[in-house]
Amino acid sequence: MKKELQIKDFFRNIESYLDQEVTIRGWVRTNRSSNKFGFIEINDGTFFKSVQVVYEQETIGNFEQIAKASISAAVMVRGILVATPQAKQPFEIKALEVSVEAGADPDYPLQKKRHSLEFLREIAHLRPRSNTFAAVFRVRSLAAYAIHQFFQENNFVYVHTPIITGSDCEGAGEMFRITTLDLKELPMQDGCIDYSQDFFGKETSLTVSGQLEAETFALAFRNVYTFGPTFRAENSNTARHASEFWMIEPEVAFADLNDNMNLAESMIKYIIHYVLENAPEEMEFFNNFIDKGLLERLNNLVSSDFERVTYTEAVDLLMKSGREFQFPVQWGVDLQTEHERYLTEEVYKKPIFVTDYPKEIKAFYMRLNEDDKTVAACDLLVPGVGEIIGGSQREERYDVLSARMKELGLEEKNYWWYMDLRKYGGVKHAGYGLGFERIIMYLTGMSNIRDVVPFPRTPKNAEF
Amino acid sequence: MKKELQIKDFFRNIESYLDQEVTIRGWVRTNRSSNKFGFIEINDGTFFKSVQVVYEQETIGNFEQIAKASISAAVMVRGILVATPQAKQPFEIKALEVSVEAGADPDYPLQKKRHSLEFLREIAHLRPRSNTFAAVFRVRSLAAYAIHQFFQENNFVYVHTPIITGSDCEGAGEMFRITTLDLKELPMQDGCIDYSQDFFGKETSLTVSGQLEAETFALAFRNVYTFGPTFRAENSNTARHASEFWMIEPEVAFADLNDNMNLAESMIKYIIHYVLENAPEEMEFFNNFIDKGLLERLNNLVSSDFERVTYTEAVDLLMKSGREFQFPVQWGVDLQTEHERYLTEEVYKKPIFVTDYPKEIKAFYMRLNEDDKTVAACDLLVPGVGEIIGGSQREERYDVLSARMKELGLEEKNYWWYMDLRKYGGVKHAGYGLGFERIIMYLTGMSNIRDVVPFPRTPKNAEF
Repeated sequence: MKKELQIKDFFRNIESYLDQEVTIRGWVRTNRSSNKFGFIEINDGTFFKSVQVVYEQETIGNFEQIAKASISAAVMVRGILVATPQAKQPFEIKALEVSVEAGADPDYPLQKKRHSLEFLREIAHLRPRSNTFAAVFRVRSLAAYAIHQFFQENNFVYVHTPIITGSDCEGAGEMFRITTLDLKELPMQDGCIDYSQDFFGKETSLTVSGQLEAETFALAFRNVYTFGPTFRAENSNTARHASEFWMIEPEVAFADLNDNMNLAESMIKYIIHYVLENAPEEMEFFNNFIDKGLLERLNNLVSSDFERVTYTEAVDLLMKSGREFQFPVQWGVDLQTEHERYLTEEVYKKPIFVTDYPKEIKAFYMRLNEDDKTVAACDLLVPGVGEIIGGSQREERYDVLSARMKELGLEEKNYWWYMDLRKYGGVKHAGYGLGFERIIMYLTGMSNIRDVVPFPRTPKNAEF
Repeated sequence: MKKELQIKDFFRNIESYLDQEVTIRGWVRTNRSSNKFGFIEINDGTFFKSVQVVYEQETIGNFEQIAKASISAAVMVRGILVATPQAKQPFEIKALEVSVEAGADPDYPLQKKRHSLEFLREIAHLRPRSNTFAAVFRVRSLAAYAIHQFFQENNFVYVHTPIITGSDCEGAGEMFRITTLDLKELPMQDGCIDYSQDFFGKETSLTVSGQLEAETFALAFRNVYTFGPTFRAENSNTARHASEFWMIEPEVAFADLNDNMNLAESMIKYIIHYVLENAPEEMEFFNNFIDKGLLERLNNLVSSDFERVTYTEAVDLLMKSGREFQFPVQWGVDLQTEHERYLTEEVYKKPIFVTDYPKEIKAFYMRLNEDDKTVAACDLLVPGVGEIIGGSQREERYDVLSARMKELGLEEKNYWWYMDLRKYGGVKHAGYGLGFERIIMYLTGMSNIRDVVPFPRTPKNAEF
């Protein structure tokens, strides 16, 4: 008996299989037949493209049954793999035997006609069987692996920072609370809920970032990264926000803002290069059907140097642009997506780092610059998406950090372990966060975050 | 100026650097000096071992200052790397220049004396700077990467299944509830909490497994795996249970129970092999200081075939053993850790798969065997740890699954999408779950799960 093969083997190594007997298993994508012969397109999930199987009444005993095999039925095919130099597809299988391993009811919702992305979201359990989502989720998997490969090859340690956090200090309003208390009979003490009786003995929430914990590891291992889920309980229904998403947060000791930007630039290029190399069929599909300029944009990016511009320079450019923005710009305001896209798409026409933002619009842990007004932050903006990375050099000076926290009303004792890092060999260090879904949108041209997450969570939606 | 190097470069490629000027940065592990010269052991986090730096009063201008540099201070060293064939360490750096980049307060808690693991848990933000935890967390990182590499090389698609789940059907008693409702003013309707006003419009919890969602992807991509955090709100304070832990859940279409066990066996061997290859210093450390038999056990495992035995055979063996167990054995009861360890450590002395358990003690989705009494389950038991993997072939027959759910009082409509898989090309498929922390304990010899998780979450503990 011939060894069972996967369709990817044929496409990647056709010479080894031509004119030989092969056996495959997969699902019917299309099936059409006349009295004497028929064609089934079979996809087994191991490759973006399908294989065509020709079956003839003369050869297979169960012709009638196979002619009726419906879309999505699972079949086994034994046959000879032959070249078809004249046809659209480079080869096909001439069946010697076909059998149905699992049927499909005729109400299968993914019939051949095209469906809207909105409709496909409602059948998220079936949509990876469509071309678009087969491509999206394979690219997502490859990009995740590229990220691990990039960091591991550079001797970074992967850290699993906690998902459940007891820090009530990361911006509590936007966090999901976790509890095992009986909500109908909450234990009370002095008019307050007695969280000492909750599972963890205190209030806990879902993390919004692993950065603070990652810093503790960077000051031990020098180079570390996280890659895990993070959460925002913001009630915003946009195409770019999900309540649950994955983030990558590298953190490097002995590194300053420039080292940080160099790392981010290398990483982005590495991911794009890896996906272009390992998913050429999927990327061509996106370029043809989702976003015509995609491949050109990605190829440009891989070969160009990212621009670096300070916030102050960027604001000057925006003010002198003569452009009417919905949100007027002046020094001190945060940049909106319209500003970011103007800068990266119209002024520079490539990815840019904007650095040294006013301290008032950035987080407490960012390193204060000499001017006492700005902090050593860097956001990476890319054409078509806007912000994709936010990072900074961290404030390593105990006194400066402590003063900044006081200004912001943050209680130092809640951060005792974070402050400890500044007392014991707390050397300069820097890091950033990459929103994983953002880079997948950038790589695929998909414009809604709901279409790059297997089972998206958004306000009023936690289906599946 | 010489390029800045990492200590790993020296240990892995010493010939390239001998007798050359090098610059490194790292943290002081020890520092001792006389009037004329001193020795600093420096670790930069990139490698398990440290480098010795010799500094002399004659050469460096700031001798007095450097002689006082305390443990954990961050320093820069420029000097000549020289071989020391007579000494314990193979080479050292003769300093030309040393400077302190960040000091360390004298109350640094990780002074040279040995600390208990319990004490180190209280300073989880500093413990990765100790030998034991530097080794544990590097092995954890390498093992995670080995898992990705194994699956990606075998053309598996990595799926991020959701962390927040609206399925109230995975065993609600043990789940953490998620909410953004104001607990002091809960919206009520007809005496019940009105979850339609909660963030997701219904009750939601933290996932206990991504398996059901992974099945949807396996029936599209054939080979998939998850690797993400999972949660149990069990109030059990043991050395083997954490409330938050990571799981790997591969799922394969067109696969039966034997394929499943073959995959699990290959994966386990791959992980162990990768870690032995890539962390020899760490593994030697564990073997010397944590668990004397570790390397022998791991090397044995990599070269042996795992045993396969049915539950019925295992129960026979246990009943005939003449052994007094705390929990008596008879056909139908679940195996306890004492039974599992007896089988794997005393009877077979190697890893064993126990298969075909009584359906009453296993989950609803496991495939019913011909005997109508057992299901196609497989648990992998390993010496020293017990169960490390639990898996099964899944029930792909709509009618059988539906009947089983009715028996167990599960409502089919809550599983509409899971049932759909059985209607549309729902071919045979199988998968398993590997507890990531369990394999790290097995690899390192660490006996408490709290010591293989960066910041463990257990009942009454969510510190950091």
